[in-house]
Amino acid sequence: MPKISFKGLEMPESPIRKLAPFADKAIDEGKKIYFLNIGQPDIATPKVALDAVKTNDLDILSYSPSSGFESYKTKLAKYYVKKGIDIRPEELIVTTGGSEALLFTMGSITDPGDEVIIPEPFYANYNGFSVASGVTVKPVESHFENNFALPPISEFEAKITERTKAIIICNPGNPTGYLYTKDELQKLADLVLKHDLFLVADEVYREFVYDGIEHHSIMSLPELKEHAIMVDSVSKRYSMCGARIGCMVSRNKELMVTAMKFAQARLSPPTFAQIASEAALDTTDDYFLEVNEEYKERRDTLIEALEDIKGVKVAKPKGAFYCVVELPVEDTEDFAKWLLSEFDVNGETVMVAPAAGFYSTPGSGLNQIRIAYVLEKQSLLKAVSILKMALQAYNNR
Amino acid sequence: MPKISFKGLEMPESPIRKLAPFADKAIDEGKKIYFLNIGQPDIATPKVALDAVKTNDLDILSYSPSSGFESYKTKLAKYYVKKGIDIRPEELIVTTGGSEALLFTMGSITDPGDEVIIPEPFYANYNGFSVASGVTVKPVESHFENNFALPPISEFEAKITERTKAIIICNPGNPTGYLYTKDELQKLADLVLKHDLFLVADEVYREFVYDGIEHHSIMSLPELKEHAIMVDSVSKRYSMCGARIGCMVSRNKELMVTAMKFAQARLSPPTFAQIASEAALDTTDDYFLEVNEEYKERRDTLIEALEDIKGVKVAKPKGAFYCVVELPVEDTEDFAKWLLSEFDVNGETVMVAPAAGFYSTPGSGLNQIRIAYVLEKQSLLKAVSILKMALQAYNNR
Repeated sequence: MPKISFKGLEMPESPIRKLAPFADKAIDEGKKIYFLNIGQPDIATPKVALDAVKTNDLDILSYSPSSGFESYKTKLAKYYVKKGIDIRPEELIVTTGGSEALLFTMGSITDPGDEVIIPEPFYANYNGFSVASGVTVKPVESHFENNFALPPISEFEAKITERTKAIIICNPGNPTGYLYTKDELQKLADLVLKHDLFLVADEVYREFVYDGIEHHSIMSLPELKEHAIMVDSVSKRYSMCGARIGCMVSRNKELMVTAMKFAQARLSPPTFAQIASEAALDTTDDYFLEVNEEYKERRDTLIEALEDIKGVKVAKPKGAFYCVVELPVEDTEDFAKWLLSEFDVNGETVMVAPAAGFYSTPGSGLNQIRIAYVLEKQSLLKAVSILKMALQAYNNR
Repeated sequence: MPKISFKGLEMPESPIRKLAPFADKAIDEGKKIYFLNIGQPDIATPKVALDAVKTNDLDILSYSPSSGFESYKTKLAKYYVKKGIDIRPEELIVTTGGSEALLFTMGSITDPGDEVIIPEPFYANYNGFSVASGVTVKPVESHFENNFALPPISEFEAKITERTKAIIICNPGNPTGYLYTKDELQKLADLVLKHDLFLVADEVYREFVYDGIEHHSIMSLPELKEHAIMVDSVSKRYSMCGARIGCMVSRNKELMVTAMKFAQARLSPPTFAQIASEAALDTTDDYFLEVNEEYKERRDTLIEALEDIKGVKVAKPKGAFYCVVELPVEDTEDFAKWLLSEFDVNGETVMVAPAAGFYSTPGSGLNQIRIAYVLEKQSLLKAVSILKMALQAYNNR
């Protein structure tokens, strides 16, 4: 039998996928599951985007340019300018999802054996992309107690070695919902300039910020001209996760020439999805106001209900649509499995994401879960009431 | 300035992209170019595929499962069974183009420093994906004189080291158009079994075979159960290059579990494109008969016209829609640039792909070009007549 690569064996399984067999079994048994575990919004995709695909008049579904259609890049650059981020079309490469923007970034700036520093907990697939690139993640722990604010910059500096190539942040954060302040970004900027590292910011949740707080992009820091790489995606912004369109943005010309070589090797991003994404840019501000109002209400509803449960604590998110929740259990992975396989209230149960999978330090976050508030309020309340009963039953076993 | 990775610096630029600035300039100058350089067919995409996307009734463009929609996988497996290849849905992962199938394959079976053996000339992006994975390509030269038939198996065996993980073939071949015989595949099968290597076959041109010859898939060799990996794509089959849908197929369970971890890290393949690809499977046999007849006529027209030029030789292709052509010039890259920048016949010129980029041995194929016969016959004849005059003018400078 020919051998699987070490890399392949090391590739982490998604923390959510681990529970999939338990969920499948629960569904087979006829249970209804409230899925609080994944970031698949129930928000309708803007009609203007869906209609553009329905009315396309292509006869030949051809390759697009490797960096994406010029018309889309031009319009996308204008979107950023409107957001106060001065980007030109040639400073962006359209990618197959934010995922591919991360892969192109890793490929362009890291070699096997290199290191990247990431505040944990972090989006679990950063681990996957790092392993795929032969790169080691050096985590800096952020803390539940202060809602996962940026850890002291000295802790980042302590992790820098000769092999460090970048610091990667997610802003607003998945799974934390934390929104970095301008001051925090400035500290990171100073550090990467001092050590000549790249600062990579995954800003796919940019549009989802609450309580009147402003989102600050690393692309707004002019001194990071050669050092900043932004990763973005239409998946969450327009509830278009299935499009698989993102982009990699940087003003560093040598970097973009390099990333283009990776882009050319895979030929082009998907055509239909680019048509949808280009049209989605006509989405009116009303849509975002409405969606943000909806998420804000869900967040507030969810947190109020959760904090009503004895022993449950919530790290209050300022953005995205996730929150990390501490439960009065020792091991949330065991609890999450039990929820699916041994518990129900009138045939209904809840699926949550154990937070340990979002940490790279073993043993961290064992009593935490991530909840995605991507369901409407009544479902969230129902789910939390089930969770409350479940916690009681679980701890009284 | 932060450093680009060695890997990024080493990433080869596509042999075609190198000429792009010259083509852009020619277009700016108002020249009409006959593009014989890329495999973008002018054949219409089956209407049934385009219509399925136009009439989709999605409200939320959600993620699909990471391995692709079950309905698509089931129907795709039936397509293979109809082709005499016994594949079950769980033995395939839907990928974002054949490109991603190659990346998942490389990730699952190779670590940095490993080697793969590929008969050259080969599809240039195999080099890109190898560099991206830190893997070294060990070429085995195939020869123009026998239409790029499989080189003696002893030459493959001589290249096998402890780091060799796979032999990769493209069948029918890009750029050669060569179609491996059952006997040649059997020899490769015996070799990979002897040394416990994977045999990877890129079979994206499966449907394009001429002169009544049958295509043989490596998946038809039962002894390769654990060793065979097939890469496929809808791009060429249905003239849907812009869909970006392919698949990775293997009966090796451990391998597929590993590849799934790479698939999960990038979440899912594009949804609209899967809808189109699933519908495309309803394409009738008439379509392929007609398309194959068209390509066969183009091939014959092209070769006859080319062989009529003094000093020009053609390696006759049995499949795909490319052929490698020897020109009476020393360096076809220089000639190709000259064609775009200094030559025209009444404002018209031709773009060809210098073949050196399809070899990994430096200095090989310098007097060869690849021609893609993806234009209709009259355009092909016009392009060849321009090429004829160009060769005269170039050699009389």
